[in-house]
Amino acid sequence: MHPPIEFWFEFGSNYSYLALMRIEALAGRAGVPLVWKPFLLGPIFRELGWQDSPFNEQREKGEYVWRDMARRAAKYGIPFTRPSSFPRRALLPMRVALLGADQRWMGEYCRRIMLRNWSQDAEIDDPDAVLALLAGLVDDPVAVLRAAQGEDNKEALRAQTAEARRLGIFGAPSFIVRGELFWGDDRLEDALEYAQSLA
Amino acid sequence: MHPPIEFWFEFGSNYSYLALMRIEALAGRAGVPLVWKPFLLGPIFRELGWQDSPFNEQREKGEYVWRDMARRAAKYGIPFTRPSSFPRRALLPMRVALLGADQRWMGEYCRRIMLRNWSQDAEIDDPDAVLALLAGLVDDPVAVLRAAQGEDNKEALRAQTAEARRLGIFGAPSFIVRGELFWGDDRLEDALEYAQSLA
Repeated sequence: MHPPIEFWFEFGSNYSYLALMRIEALAGRAGVPLVWKPFLLGPIFRELGWQDSPFNEQREKGEYVWRDMARRAAKYGIPFTRPSSFPRRALLPMRVALLGADQRWMGEYCRRIMLRNWSQDAEIDDPDAVLALLAGLVDDPVAVLRAAQGEDNKEALRAQTAEARRLGIFGAPSFIVRGELFWGDDRLEDALEYAQSLA
Repeated sequence: MHPPIEFWFEFGSNYSYLALMRIEALAGRAGVPLVWKPFLLGPIFRELGWQDSPFNEQREKGEYVWRDMARRAAKYGIPFTRPSSFPRRALLPMRVALLGADQRWMGEYCRRIMLRNWSQDAEIDDPDAVLALLAGLVDDPVAVLRAAQGEDNKEALRAQTAEARRLGIFGAPSFIVRGELFWGDDRLEDALEYAQSLA
């Protein structure tokens, strides 16, 4: 049995999108258990001294990133439209993701949220949208939304974000395999190979 | 005939090291002509508002980068020792590289300089070291060094650096294939595939 891959991600992060659309299938094929670790990127960036996404703070890199995204999405066969708003607020869907992290519907839920942001160019921090995307995945979307907005769950997401910081995570997506940190969608395969190399 | 891949690099840049050790063989195998484009990263970073390597300016990312480097080098089978000084000054060997960009000895010269920095942990902005590494590659190392330090060549390296900036280059290594910019060692294969897709 290989050690699990922890997948630290944020719905507002563009490279998290590429990794999220691929990880469940790739981890399954590799025989590596997948542990979903939603966390908030905003507080991490602010602690590192950024008020905005580094892709917005640095113009040249920002312009490049959208070309890179389009090329990588095409390479993977993933739909992609440059969003008219970036980074999109994702607090509510992130709270739902924390609640769903060990549920069977997690992967499909996350892909639906991501596609809405990165392919349909629509807001995701929106109760109606989240309810609609939960439909068919959970028995009672309204109850899930209510639980996601409970104080315990809000606090749990803050704690998970603090844990990311403690682990040295400085961006998303990040992958952790038995303490070894990998950063960026383009290190997903390396992280899985590392997990496969361990008993 | 495929369009060429332009390889924009700096001896002081760690990810340039990984790309430089691989690119001549990979481009040759892909049937893509290789154009060497040495440029100075320092002036680019300063124009972007950094006084030092971003890997030094941001502690978390900096710590991560050395683990990533060690893993990637092992994956490629390239020797790597974290240098005791980073980033190393590289002005003199860069000037020689500009002079050698269209010479047969360019690839081997660059690999020798890079190995000295990234495997032997030794200074490279050093006339004696550059002379020693040129031995056996050029007929008259002293004459090459003298030409490299001539005013024309110094000015040409400044001009090449300004051209990098004009092209939107913000880091190294960068690859340009018919106007399309790819950034980072981990995009080398994508850049070559792109060149191969063009007639």
